[in-house]
Amino acid sequence: MKPIRLTHLLAGLDSAALTPEASIAIAREAIAAGDGTIGAFVRLAPASSHAEALAATGPLRGVPLGVKDIYDTADMATEYGSPIYAGHRPRADAALVTMARRRGAYIAGKTATTEFAHMQPAATRNPRDLAHTPGGSSSGSAAAVAAGMVAGAFGSQTAGSIIRPAAFCGVAGYKPSFRLLPTVGMKTFAWSLDTAGLFAAGVADVALLAALLTGRDLAVPATPLGSLRIGLYRSTADAGLAPDMRSAVATAAGRLEAAGAALVDMPEPDALAEARDAQRMLQDFEAALALGHEHEAHADALSPGLRAALDAGAAITPDAYDAARRVARHGRKAATALFDGVDALLVPSALGAAPRSLETTGDPAMNRLWTLTGNPCVNVPGLVTTAGMPLGLTIVTRFGRDRDALAIGAHLEELLA
Amino acid sequence: MKPIRLTHLLAGLDSAALTPEASIAIAREAIAAGDGTIGAFVRLAPASSHAEALAATGPLRGVPLGVKDIYDTADMATEYGSPIYAGHRPRADAALVTMARRRGAYIAGKTATTEFAHMQPAATRNPRDLAHTPGGSSSGSAAAVAAGMVAGAFGSQTAGSIIRPAAFCGVAGYKPSFRLLPTVGMKTFAWSLDTAGLFAAGVADVALLAALLTGRDLAVPATPLGSLRIGLYRSTADAGLAPDMRSAVATAAGRLEAAGAALVDMPEPDALAEARDAQRMLQDFEAALALGHEHEAHADALSPGLRAALDAGAAITPDAYDAARRVARHGRKAATALFDGVDALLVPSALGAAPRSLETTGDPAMNRLWTLTGNPCVNVPGLVTTAGMPLGLTIVTRFGRDRDALAIGAHLEELLA
Repeated sequence: MKPIRLTHLLAGLDSAALTPEASIAIAREAIAAGDGTIGAFVRLAPASSHAEALAATGPLRGVPLGVKDIYDTADMATEYGSPIYAGHRPRADAALVTMARRRGAYIAGKTATTEFAHMQPAATRNPRDLAHTPGGSSSGSAAAVAAGMVAGAFGSQTAGSIIRPAAFCGVAGYKPSFRLLPTVGMKTFAWSLDTAGLFAAGVADVALLAALLTGRDLAVPATPLGSLRIGLYRSTADAGLAPDMRSAVATAAGRLEAAGAALVDMPEPDALAEARDAQRMLQDFEAALALGHEHEAHADALSPGLRAALDAGAAITPDAYDAARRVARHGRKAATALFDGVDALLVPSALGAAPRSLETTGDPAMNRLWTLTGNPCVNVPGLVTTAGMPLGLTIVTRFGRDRDALAIGAHLEELLA
Repeated sequence: MKPIRLTHLLAGLDSAALTPEASIAIAREAIAAGDGTIGAFVRLAPASSHAEALAATGPLRGVPLGVKDIYDTADMATEYGSPIYAGHRPRADAALVTMARRRGAYIAGKTATTEFAHMQPAATRNPRDLAHTPGGSSSGSAAAVAAGMVAGAFGSQTAGSIIRPAAFCGVAGYKPSFRLLPTVGMKTFAWSLDTAGLFAAGVADVALLAALLTGRDLAVPATPLGSLRIGLYRSTADAGLAPDMRSAVATAAGRLEAAGAALVDMPEPDALAEARDAQRMLQDFEAALALGHEHEAHADALSPGLRAALDAGAAITPDAYDAARRVARHGRKAATALFDGVDALLVPSALGAAPRSLETTGDPAMNRLWTLTGNPCVNVPGLVTTAGMPLGLTIVTRFGRDRDALAIGAHLEELLA
């Protein structure tokens, strides 16, 4: 199964070569055929929702989307990847779901999430090799897009939960500037980090999805980019990079340079090394409050790993948390200053390809910092290991420059093709 | 009924002059006796929760609190002031509720909120004069504290929903620095503005409640304050001030000066005048997304006023919203710069005393700006009109300087006594 390119799908729908009914039917057939093996979906849309989606008008009419089961849906149970919420039926759709439905999208179902979007794996396999993790926490959304079941999907990222699974599954992932997309109706893990974002086949597809969903000027421009300055960002976190990821960065840098970009070596400022460390403390402290009820009333139904994280978070003093918030604030300023001399940074999306394991979702070491700073990030697919597993690269731009991140990401994707 | 002073209540509980059982029973009796007239509560705690509260240990054991019905509670329905949520029973307590229960507090019940914390009045009367509004949107929380039913209450503010009702009911209200208290499990109206906060009888009481609830050093210090510099902030919004509110500001300024404070006249910078205007646009745009499902699926069950606000919000373009966000960002910087020369600002908490009407909750004109900037605000009670209605004054301090706001507010309250 190849990913559905949203750009092509919409061209087909626009030209009436494809009806919205047929587009929805194709997605449902792809899910029926493939999801027994992949496990991307935890729940499919009720039959009533097909007619409702077809009755809607809007630029996404006939576009099948997957929604991570961390977002509330009024017409489907929403379980947040936890037995505590078995059968839970929210009263309202999350804001992002309402936006999609208003614009005519067909919500095909709920995609698997790790437990409360933390680390405990969901039962999803990587469509590129079933023995490998799809990454997490947006496991099902990345896998559903990679397996060609839906044209796009919603995810969320608190440490590395969009960019990492996109990289592992070989699709585009877009983590917008913090709060560009609403998180209302998403189960909170850490409110100063939780970021709503999107998956699609390629960068141009995810850009188009973002544009049509929000009414913002985010689609990749048809005109070529001017001469780019690209920062090669180096940090101590790079120590954990796999050799094939180092090669992938070098390959991408070489292609950019050959296409006329100037490459600038950028060692990590201290303020950002400290900010990366602060991310964990913010995440743990806030999670202990955000999941306080579950921690208090349902501790036995939590995985040991999450329980330990919540215990650790509850032990952090307000003073230590406040100090971490100050570090984060300085880190955000330092992140903005990075872009005084470059248009974008090129960084690995993960330490390497997806681990060959279903017991882990991989390491968000490459993503934590940019979630904390809130900068837009785009995972660019295209490169692979010698074994054929995807290696993802991230384009990072200045806060608020989402359009640039998507345009430069699409440019790089073409160069890698 | 006089407000219960938390400082006195805790002294009684500490000395065993009062048992937690008796404290809870007193609150329940006060509610039973008074709430038929006041209408502060929409729902009382189930009998099972008394035993649970008494089984808990912690610094708030035996302290009765009211929770605005905009915060989720797992043991009581949560209706957000809207018939759309009639009988809605959340699966989890809001984070603030969990924090309170963990520390032993007794949640006496849910207090009345305006519809989704917007403008449509709740059926609550002002305990100081039943013909007057208690203010909104945290109508029930302010009234329950003013009527001596509970020792403290939770509120939320998106424009002026904590400071205004506190002022109208003659109690202390504390709007902390943005995100000092978690909003997880609060129904979102506008995510960049919604602020969780507290009510109690006096400023020292609300400071103690904040300190015990969060484990932060927020209690009013026993030592006297050094020599203060207080800014008298003047803006074009003052044009709407009632004469008795102008007198109240002058009285408070005079008492502060007599006590050794230096008063500094501070005209509003342009950046903050613009920021005040931007508050409305942020509120409307975000509300149209946050309440998108209700707007879409239950429009007939919304009040005409809220429906009009959501329609207006849905018509705002992303570009206009982004421009307003930039204005807000500049406003926050300008707000910080205000405190380079002063320790705190003294501003009116409302245009005057509570309007003699139950058809309006009053005007948040004096509060919008400080909600947008996120600065800590404390309503200081003490002054009254010639008719005996409370006139509230606000102490505003630099972002993050909550302790100063509470300490200076308590100082002013003593000077006004």
